[in-house]
Amino acid sequence: MRLSQFYLPTLKETPGEAQIASHRFMLRSGMIRQQAAGIYAWLPLGLRVLRKIEAIVREEQERAGAVELLMPTIQPASLWEESGRFDAYGPEMLRIKDRSGRDMLYGPTNEEMITEIVRASTKSYKQLPQLLYHIQWKFRDELRPRFGVMRGREFLMKDTYSFDASPEDARKSYLKMFAAYLRTFRRMGLETVPVKADPGPIGGDLTHEFVVLAENGESDVFLDRRLLGKGVPGADTDFSGDLEPMFKDWTSHYAATDEMHDEAAWAEVEEAEKLSLRGIEVGHIFYFGTKYSEPLRAKVQTAEGEEVAMEMGSYGIGVSRLLGALIEAHHDEHGPKWPVSVAPFHVGIVNLRPGDEGTDKLTAEVEAELTAAGVEVLTDDTKDRAGEKFARMDLCGLPHVLTIGPKGVAAGEIEWKRRDTGEKSALPQAEAAKTITREVQEALAALQR
Amino acid sequence: MRLSQFYLPTLKETPGEAQIASHRFMLRSGMIRQQAAGIYAWLPLGLRVLRKIEAIVREEQERAGAVELLMPTIQPASLWEESGRFDAYGPEMLRIKDRSGRDMLYGPTNEEMITEIVRASTKSYKQLPQLLYHIQWKFRDELRPRFGVMRGREFLMKDTYSFDASPEDARKSYLKMFAAYLRTFRRMGLETVPVKADPGPIGGDLTHEFVVLAENGESDVFLDRRLLGKGVPGADTDFSGDLEPMFKDWTSHYAATDEMHDEAAWAEVEEAEKLSLRGIEVGHIFYFGTKYSEPLRAKVQTAEGEEVAMEMGSYGIGVSRLLGALIEAHHDEHGPKWPVSVAPFHVGIVNLRPGDEGTDKLTAEVEAELTAAGVEVLTDDTKDRAGEKFARMDLCGLPHVLTIGPKGVAAGEIEWKRRDTGEKSALPQAEAAKTITREVQEALAALQR
Repeated sequence: MRLSQFYLPTLKETPGEAQIASHRFMLRSGMIRQQAAGIYAWLPLGLRVLRKIEAIVREEQERAGAVELLMPTIQPASLWEESGRFDAYGPEMLRIKDRSGRDMLYGPTNEEMITEIVRASTKSYKQLPQLLYHIQWKFRDELRPRFGVMRGREFLMKDTYSFDASPEDARKSYLKMFAAYLRTFRRMGLETVPVKADPGPIGGDLTHEFVVLAENGESDVFLDRRLLGKGVPGADTDFSGDLEPMFKDWTSHYAATDEMHDEAAWAEVEEAEKLSLRGIEVGHIFYFGTKYSEPLRAKVQTAEGEEVAMEMGSYGIGVSRLLGALIEAHHDEHGPKWPVSVAPFHVGIVNLRPGDEGTDKLTAEVEAELTAAGVEVLTDDTKDRAGEKFARMDLCGLPHVLTIGPKGVAAGEIEWKRRDTGEKSALPQAEAAKTITREVQEALAALQR
Repeated sequence: MRLSQFYLPTLKETPGEAQIASHRFMLRSGMIRQQAAGIYAWLPLGLRVLRKIEAIVREEQERAGAVELLMPTIQPASLWEESGRFDAYGPEMLRIKDRSGRDMLYGPTNEEMITEIVRASTKSYKQLPQLLYHIQWKFRDELRPRFGVMRGREFLMKDTYSFDASPEDARKSYLKMFAAYLRTFRRMGLETVPVKADPGPIGGDLTHEFVVLAENGESDVFLDRRLLGKGVPGADTDFSGDLEPMFKDWTSHYAATDEMHDEAAWAEVEEAEKLSLRGIEVGHIFYFGTKYSEPLRAKVQTAEGEEVAMEMGSYGIGVSRLLGALIEAHHDEHGPKWPVSVAPFHVGIVNLRPGDEGTDKLTAEVEAELTAAGVEVLTDDTKDRAGEKFARMDLCGLPHVLTIGPKGVAAGEIEWKRRDTGEKSALPQAEAAKTITREVQEALAALQR
């Protein structure tokens, strides 16, 4: 992609309302633009990252056996009256009357609707387990939206819902999602820790939050150091196999947010292993049994001919929130440092002198070779000053930047800068595209293992 | 995909409210489920078709040089007060008050918002042309939603918006979209005709509707027969080149819907060329000049230093509506006949005797070979009766169905049925996957040319 053909409205000034790095950099690098409090338009650079995160979430859901559907954003209130949540849900729910005066709402979550869908088609235990997910925009009318996409009002979430005939089977579904979540976040280049969580308004007793460790995190996390750097379930994981050992391995060390912190249990952790850090919640999984299937009468016949309410769980990932979490975890003072798997482009090329025959030719050649190899390139072909171009590349946070100028063309070299370490080196022209392709492919493969 | 792992809640009975084939088949084949009047959940089979349509729309937009962004569903009323449309827009607009009492709305269209975005970043003619698009859910509060996804309330649309410094350049943008639309619909296996249209509430004088010809179409179309079967712009079209000859070729024959029908001009068409048919609108393109840029003060400096309002156009495709149009154009009494480019799966395999060693083994082999070649397979591995399985495959409308039973295993043959013609033949086992792969690839390539 040529910058002259793209739409990248970067800002020189930091908007006053942006208090944290991710909000600041997303506004400044032209990833998002605010349309109302907590409501953003996703500009092309931001949308590319959002789509990559979505694709990773989708791939790992499919790997774990979940099937995708898509529920609408607007729901009838009647469903929520069945579960009793229409009145119970607070002012975060955006309530709407349609032109005929019917009560509607913009879905803040989808337990009721998915239960309605599954109860209509599922009559026998033989049709279970069922693991269904969707990725959809939601609305929660926060009183004080802030921190950009970290606490917006309209936001993108992935929700999975599990339906099983017994608590034992429901636990298996829970463990599948637990394993899928560990893989999902690791593939994005995030270190997450599953911590015991507060079930909150969704209810249930088996529940974990997945927390990204980051200095600017919103909550305190207390954890056993041995949870860091732990290997996640591999790409070859058998999701229909026994996931209990994996689950035990991850949950046998202390880990809790401040709301669930247990001083007595914490005191038993060896001093040398104690870590107290800040974290950002990016996923939350719940097993809540028959909390919704009972009032909504979503029942199946068991093998014994008995009628039982289905055992349910729900599993959320904050897809748009992850952009904020990723930047909080990976940035410096100049901008984000995107992990290669979620970077808007893998490589930036700075043509220092567009219009010069030599730099134009070399730029086009390297660009073509990278593109043919499946590497995504953003080429700065503008006439802006060199300093401005370099600052913009840093602000965009692409993992690799190649600089092509007249001196390099004469010397047969291309300058290569890695965004993560800032390391610079000179690559022979003939090898530049091959080297970068290998770097990108190896980094992607390492994250997918 | 194994049917036992999928979620396909087909219905035996036709729901009473479904008056037309597409609505009936989408409900019966488990593609959608109604959640409220004109509001549907997209079940896995339907979502797969929706995503394929979306992908074709996206590829052809990118080919024409449009850049993707994503605007939110909820908009502040203030923007619409600037354009004067907040009061002018009818009761189809879903108006909302948030918890702080601010007027908001669920976007029925996005001219105001995109103008706000572009005016903030664009000060000079040098930054133009700009062609931006998004694919997003919209809401129009129809008084009588009907015909399923053909006239729903929550629906998916692609909107492109063009910004130019002069009417001449705006016409170039218009022609790019005109060409892209011809390609987009043809790739889905649809015959569409661009007809002169009524600008309606968006305004403007250069405007075309793209109409699919189908018996159950909603409006009358009068057209010159020579428009049928006309070649669309090829994959190698130079979108920055001169598109006027293509435009002239397509617009020099008479074509109008009843609202724009001109009896005098129609009388001049040779009798033998006159066709009067029914059509379904699937796209609508408008050039409306400064209708929004003027009130919203979206201005640029020209090369002469003059300040002018940007010339704008908007270009819509009804993405979710296209599923209905596709079925109306391609079905028989048993179900849809999906063109290969938008089929939920390319091939269905019916294993007539799951549990039988021979049929299981052959099924797995053919499935694996097709999948490895990139062909999408849905395998019926259930214990339902053969008749039920065949009826379900017809209802799903997959282009090819392979039937694997004990007799065929013994004879070394697999039965192959083409959904479009109903033609059946026997394929030697060793060649079945290769033959089907070639069929699928050739059909896809023919549509992409």
